[in-house]
Amino acid sequence: MADTPSTAPPLPGYSYEHFRITRPLDQGQQHWTAHVEIDRPRKLNAFVPGMWRELGDVFRRLGREAEVRAVVLSGAGPRAFSAGLDIGDAAAGPLSAPGGEGDAARRAWAFRREIEEFQGCVGEVERCEKPVICVLHGISFGLAIDIASCADIRLCSRETRFSVKEVDIGLAADIGTLARLPKIVGSTTWVKEVCFTGREFSASEALDVGFVSRVLDDKASAVDAGLALAAVLAEKSPVALQGTKELINRGRELSTAEALRYTAVWNSVALQTEDVAVAIGRVVGKGKKKAVFEKL
Amino acid sequence: MADTPSTAPPLPGYSYEHFRITRPLDQGQQHWTAHVEIDRPRKLNAFVPGMWRELGDVFRRLGREAEVRAVVLSGAGPRAFSAGLDIGDAAAGPLSAPGGEGDAARRAWAFRREIEEFQGCVGEVERCEKPVICVLHGISFGLAIDIASCADIRLCSRETRFSVKEVDIGLAADIGTLARLPKIVGSTTWVKEVCFTGREFSASEALDVGFVSRVLDDKASAVDAGLALAAVLAEKSPVALQGTKELINRGRELSTAEALRYTAVWNSVALQTEDVAVAIGRVVGKGKKKAVFEKL
Amino acid sequence: MADTPSTAPPLPGYSYEHFRITRPLDQGQQHWTAHVEIDRPRKLNAFVPGMWRELGDVFRRLGREAEVRAVVLSGAGPRAFSAGLDIGDAAAGPLSAPGGEGDAARRAWAFRREIEEFQGCVGEVERCEKPVICVLHGISFGLAIDIASCADIRLCSRETRFSVKEVDIGLAADIGTLARLPKIVGSTTWVKEVCFTGREFSASEALDVGFVSRVLDDKASAVDAGLALAAVLAEKSPVALQGTKELINRGRELSTAEALRYTAVWNSVALQTEDVAVAIGRVVGKGKKKAVFEKL
Amino acid sequence: MADTPSTAPPLPGYSYEHFRITRPLDQGQQHWTAHVEIDRPRKLNAFVPGMWRELGDVFRRLGREAEVRAVVLSGAGPRAFSAGLDIGDAAAGPLSAPGGEGDAARRAWAFRREIEEFQGCVGEVERCEKPVICVLHGISFGLAIDIASCADIRLCSRETRFSVKEVDIGLAADIGTLARLPKIVGSTTWVKEVCFTGREFSASEALDVGFVSRVLDDKASAVDAGLALAAVLAEKSPVALQGTKELINRGRELSTAEALRYTAVWNSVALQTEDVAVAIGRVVGKGKKKAVFEKL
Amino acid sequence: MADTPSTAPPLPGYSYEHFRITRPLDQGQQHWTAHVEIDRPRKLNAFVPGMWRELGDVFRRLGREAEVRAVVLSGAGPRAFSAGLDIGDAAAGPLSAPGGEGDAARRAWAFRREIEEFQGCVGEVERCEKPVICVLHGISFGLAIDIASCADIRLCSRETRFSVKEVDIGLAADIGTLARLPKIVGSTTWVKEVCFTGREFSASEALDVGFVSRVLDDKASAVDAGLALAAVLAEKSPVALQGTKELINRGRELSTAEALRYTAVWNSVALQTEDVAVAIGRVVGKGKKKAVFEKL
Amino acid sequence: MADTPSTAPPLPGYSYEHFRITRPLDQGQQHWTAHVEIDRPRKLNAFVPGMWRELGDVFRRLGREAEVRAVVLSGAGPRAFSAGLDIGDAAAGPLSAPGGEGDAARRAWAFRREIEEFQGCVGEVERCEKPVICVLHGISFGLAIDIASCADIRLCSRETRFSVKEVDIGLAADIGTLARLPKIVGSTTWVKEVCFTGREFSASEALDVGFVSRVLDDKASAVDAGLALAAVLAEKSPVALQGTKELINRGRELSTAEALRYTAVWNSVALQTEDVAVAIGRVVGKGKKKAVFEKL
Repeated sequence: MADTPSTAPPLPGYSYEHFRITRPLDQGQQHWTAHVEIDRPRKLNAFVPGMWRELGDVFRRLGREAEVRAVVLSGAGPRAFSAGLDIGDAAAGPLSAPGGEGDAARRAWAFRREIEEFQGCVGEVERCEKPVICVLHGISFGLAIDIASCADIRLCSRETRFSVKEVDIGLAADIGTLARLPKIVGSTTWVKEVCFTGREFSASEALDVGFVSRVLDDKASAVDAGLALAAVLAEKSPVALQGTKELINRGRELSTAEALRYTAVWNSVALQTEDVAVAIGRVVGKGKKKAVFEKL
Repeated sequence: MADTPSTAPPLPGYSYEHFRITRPLDQGQQHWTAHVEIDRPRKLNAFVPGMWRELGDVFRRLGREAEVRAVVLSGAGPRAFSAGLDIGDAAAGPLSAPGGEGDAARRAWAFRREIEEFQGCVGEVERCEKPVICVLHGISFGLAIDIASCADIRLCSRETRFSVKEVDIGLAADIGTLARLPKIVGSTTWVKEVCFTGREFSASEALDVGFVSRVLDDKASAVDAGLALAAVLAEKSPVALQGTKELINRGRELSTAEALRYTAVWNSVALQTEDVAVAIGRVVGKGKKKAVFEKL
Repeated sequence: MADTPSTAPPLPGYSYEHFRITRPLDQGQQHWTAHVEIDRPRKLNAFVPGMWRELGDVFRRLGREAEVRAVVLSGAGPRAFSAGLDIGDAAAGPLSAPGGEGDAARRAWAFRREIEEFQGCVGEVERCEKPVICVLHGISFGLAIDIASCADIRLCSRETRFSVKEVDIGLAADIGTLARLPKIVGSTTWVKEVCFTGREFSASEALDVGFVSRVLDDKASAVDAGLALAAVLAEKSPVALQGTKELINRGRELSTAEALRYTAVWNSVALQTEDVAVAIGRVVGKGKKKAVFEKL
Repeated sequence: MADTPSTAPPLPGYSYEHFRITRPLDQGQQHWTAHVEIDRPRKLNAFVPGMWRELGDVFRRLGREAEVRAVVLSGAGPRAFSAGLDIGDAAAGPLSAPGGEGDAARRAWAFRREIEEFQGCVGEVERCEKPVICVLHGISFGLAIDIASCADIRLCSRETRFSVKEVDIGLAADIGTLARLPKIVGSTTWVKEVCFTGREFSASEALDVGFVSRVLDDKASAVDAGLALAAVLAEKSPVALQGTKELINRGRELSTAEALRYTAVWNSVALQTEDVAVAIGRVVGKGKKKAVFEKL
Repeated sequence: MADTPSTAPPLPGYSYEHFRITRPLDQGQQHWTAHVEIDRPRKLNAFVPGMWRELGDVFRRLGREAEVRAVVLSGAGPRAFSAGLDIGDAAAGPLSAPGGEGDAARRAWAFRREIEEFQGCVGEVERCEKPVICVLHGISFGLAIDIASCADIRLCSRETRFSVKEVDIGLAADIGTLARLPKIVGSTTWVKEVCFTGREFSASEALDVGFVSRVLDDKASAVDAGLALAAVLAEKSPVALQGTKELINRGRELSTAEALRYTAVWNSVALQTEDVAVAIGRVVGKGKKKAVFEKL
Repeated sequence: MADTPSTAPPLPGYSYEHFRITRPLDQGQQHWTAHVEIDRPRKLNAFVPGMWRELGDVFRRLGREAEVRAVVLSGAGPRAFSAGLDIGDAAAGPLSAPGGEGDAARRAWAFRREIEEFQGCVGEVERCEKPVICVLHGISFGLAIDIASCADIRLCSRETRFSVKEVDIGLAADIGTLARLPKIVGSTTWVKEVCFTGREFSASEALDVGFVSRVLDDKASAVDAGLALAAVLAEKSPVALQGTKELINRGRELSTAEALRYTAVWNSVALQTEDVAVAIGRVVGKGKKKAVFEKL
């Protein structure tokens, strides 16, 4: 049952204090999937300093891992994807004056550096070259939204409790939610309402506004759905899949004309892959057997 | 009943010909709210020249009013939030050739200056540092959409009749709707359809596409809901709340990387507020009593 | 019945191998509409090389055709709007190494030129000064989505089968879908899911996410609805209508401040049209008779 | 002699405490010129609070003054264009904690508002629709560079002493120099050197790097040269001249493609001026007599 | 002598009414160069309608001409590179009301389309994939500057007379000078001065501000220098050379971060050329013999 | 003599294979300076793989080193600042197919990752929060220009030989020169000429175009001048100095309006430093003694 930590074998070489990285058992392509679990369940997977550096490191490495073609990110334990920043511990973190001394300008320097490092670590989820599927459940507050907003696809279980909680601890969310959420969902009146009030919103509300693309009955089903979707993606040409991710992400930052130009340059070499012939062969051959794509 | 003009006491010093600015009665934080009403109900709150300068002035001042933490904008009278530009009067306004003489280029100079001044006044609703909740009801045509698009959160009553009406008087909407509406809602096919046809759309359609975040039974309920939401916002740390508004608005204009950088600089000082400690104290203290934040 | 190719008279001078351009019969303004049909129904309207040059040429010319005020684009035959690129034929097209010789860099030059020409042709649908309504039905795969994303308004029949199919033939969509689709609909988690998996989605799903604005019972009803909508648009002031299209499209590319500035300059001359007086006259005159606007 | 304040008659209605606005005597077009002098010579034309609001007001009004086609800005008295911010007085200005109370975040709010108002006032020199020629002489420190960078054309006398002085009072220049100077001159290594060190640079150095376009022997000659250049500009078509200013300024902010598009829209109406026929008439007529252009 | 039209053999297939395209005689690489001459010397190479379409066509084709690796653009005859737009003929061109009828808005539509077509044709000089060297001499007014600003490298003869002349015929330059010139040279005070006054500037002034990179004694020497520089460029790897042009041009439009990203994608395939090995071989082999690069 | 490696004591903790980091001896502020030398003089300081990672690491750390307020970067030995990439060794570097296997698309993935890592390391010189002065001498080819373009201020000795050499080994410069050089100097015709031809340019030419801001007689004088300039910078308020660097760099990436906004937010906290009072005290006190600023 996915409600307990994954029992799949660990991905060799990926040993972290607060994250479990496994490689789901399988027959077929599923071995191309890495499953990352936030693993501090007794504390609702809340983040203490150092955890975001681990998170960044995991995704930076997975992005270039030839054995991996899709990544699923979820939270260990039954109660929370993540409760966000561990406030009790935040005294040592970005809510405290780092270093704590000097005039206001000097403290600002220290805060800015810390925020930027924090943003950079979480941003590795977005920069990861492989598609990332985030499976949310239970408490998903604050930093949970920042992280999930960096994923490509979001699924959740019915009982998920979402909240852009930061306003209630006296701050504006600064690890990415305010920059990314309005570009992810379809209504800024809704975005502002949940970010201004910090109120919880439900799975079905998240589905309606387009924050998640599917709601499952419970955590186990949601994780299974995430892994199944990853298995589907892992069957695709990695050249095509990673290119699609990159081009959508880049298109968000560029004018349409520049995005098209970038696309043309990108595909001028991506089209030289043998995957096109392999994939067309499969389509023409009625998909009788799976295509086998080389590593990337 | 909110269907009649607000009976709350006026906000001292805010006396205008076409707008009523009151401070809702209360026990609790609600005194942090300003209620702005477009006040030309016999003419369906249609705008005559001079009114947009008043509108701009009201919001420019409220943005820096330390006594105010949230603003509600609605229309006086039972029939309309606003019917838009007063066409009968438009002969003296931006539809006439201002000055009316000279060659086509010289007339264009005059038109451009007038449009830009008009845009600038309406844009003060967006630039207002405090969150602005717009409550629509009845006829909400043309300029009503331009103005509402500058607010942060939009609510409406069930009987609201929306229309991007400009095309029917021979012009492209130029006070902001065409620039802002596509960034507010989730479907450009819908945006283009309503802007090209000028057809009316209903409250429920506005809710479906994400233009409003809530539909209430009637105007009175909608205004009450707006005021209640404002009261919730007024309880928050103003540093956190105003920062959240600014960072979402700025994020719309910048690349993700630049938005994150701006966020880090912004929070490098905002995190130095005492509001964080106050707010965390409330959370830890189980919210037994309300936090008291200093003025901003 | 619209299920068979349009029986309306052809638009004089518009004779193409793979497209039929007709001028719907009418009493009233409908003669201002051009109906473009992709006309290779036996092959599911799949595109062979040369077809996109025809498509570009048709829309480049229609954009400046004074007799036309709205354009409807649909696919001939009962089975498909378009199955996308004709893979069987793609050996001569952008999936083959064009020229096929030289080192990888030299092949990239050839691919890039070909992709850019392809993008340029399809982009004419977007650049067309007149509003373009795309009516989809049946199979609407791959290139069909690229093309439809360039239209202003999308309608479809209930049985439409949509798919961003490219990933299944080993490539990232490069004719515009990845750049435009995320700006058209309200949920990037949905966009990524359909672009990563290549799975089909239905008409009702397309409606929910805002890709189409209306679903009709069958192809005939959808085409009729498209033509009826075009007739409505053709009644409007062409100065107002084309300005509205341009300002929405430009607003997508510019910051809000620059978009407002551009709008002011645009309207500084557009407001000098006589259409404003004509249109206001109609409104004031209770719309008893239709306004007559000069050609543009 | 221009070394003393201008003896030309004042421009009617332009009466300010710290600025003299005159209309140079003339035969011919020179009456189209306004001459603005910073008029606090005993204090080296240093700025005290309130002065920048006056500066902004002067240029905001001149920008729309039909009687004026070119503006010259200089400093009164023999010693300085301006010594910048009056540091003795800065206790009441943007270097003090405005309001001075509250936590660091609240003080930041007050500082930010004040800086933005200050920037806005100085920016009116740039936004002024008419060409602005800045004539520098003597001490031209700090704010002097911010202001001069907003002008279109800069001249100076040989003995001018320039300095981006802010670093020496412990702050980064925030009224525009750091944003505009690198776009005005041709070498960022030079820009950074003078901004990092705060060292003085001479007129000839300013000419070499392209900050000024001409160096005159003394202040009187420089002012005369500025007025003479203004007289030349005042002879031009104001439609052509103001359009040229706007298009160069806008081009700095937009991509080349967007700048060209904006240019086309701008000129689509500007070309409808009668000035083109008048101007061509003069060219064809061998310039025997001056063209007379209507007011703008 | 280059003062008379080139006597080199024509480039096969390139026959135009107002342009001569030749292929300089040579021993060595010079055969990789195309020489384009504006060929209306009796009228000072002034442009009549139709000429810009020819210009665009020439450069669009040369950009993809595998036989050509560098292009030189100059003007035929001893007196002028180009006197700009043929004013006498401009009645049929972009200074006339094209079509001449309808209200001001409708005339604006016609003007805008014509300006954009004109811009598009001249822009082909910039979009040409091969490096373009522009050799100016004699009268180089108005449109001459627009065209030269699209070239990569500019040379001129000592007696060249430059002028951004448009202001003197009552219009703002709209074919590209105002958008491109400030990005080409190092001083905007100089740019504004010459664009506002329309005054002539000399070859040495053009050299000082960085508009041209070299001044030769007379036209013949300048053309020879241009052809010699082209011969040098034609020896280089076309993959390296065209990539360098593209990356500099694109870098002008993108943020530094996006430019670096684009560069990495571009070179990810360009580095796969065999030219690297060939070029390194030449360097290592002490350049004894010339490298031979495959066509592109 | 600076011609030999610096004899100053090493900066504790900064031990690298290919770089020497020292802290110049001094009386006074100079101890706030770090001196970084590229230290592979027998190979003309050419870069082998691994060296750029060291370079990046050095500047990443120095950027946050409280003991350091200015950095000087130069090359060890008498002959070269750097000869660029070590071509002999490039077989193991970014010119080889990294990994060398797979189809062209897969090789592109490997190249792209390697280029981006390379760019990221060199970009640390630009991102370093402290001002960086680059002192060039002797051979300064290829990568030397990429690196120098990331510095803030460039000085050189008279005998420096500069070259954007990449085109001669068959590639377009991809580590930053093509993106940054056109924004550093004042003439794109010059930039394109040196980048297209790969020709050497001299110190005086580099000074004329604004690439360096000063030319010294020999390497020793140049290094001394760099260290002396660093000493001047180290006396300044680090809050003011680092803010100035950041605001100039950010201003290059943003529109003027966004740059001003960012500036206001930045200074809203930077102005709260005690350095302002300290610095003003020094100015008022006639600079008798040096100001002492707290660490940053």
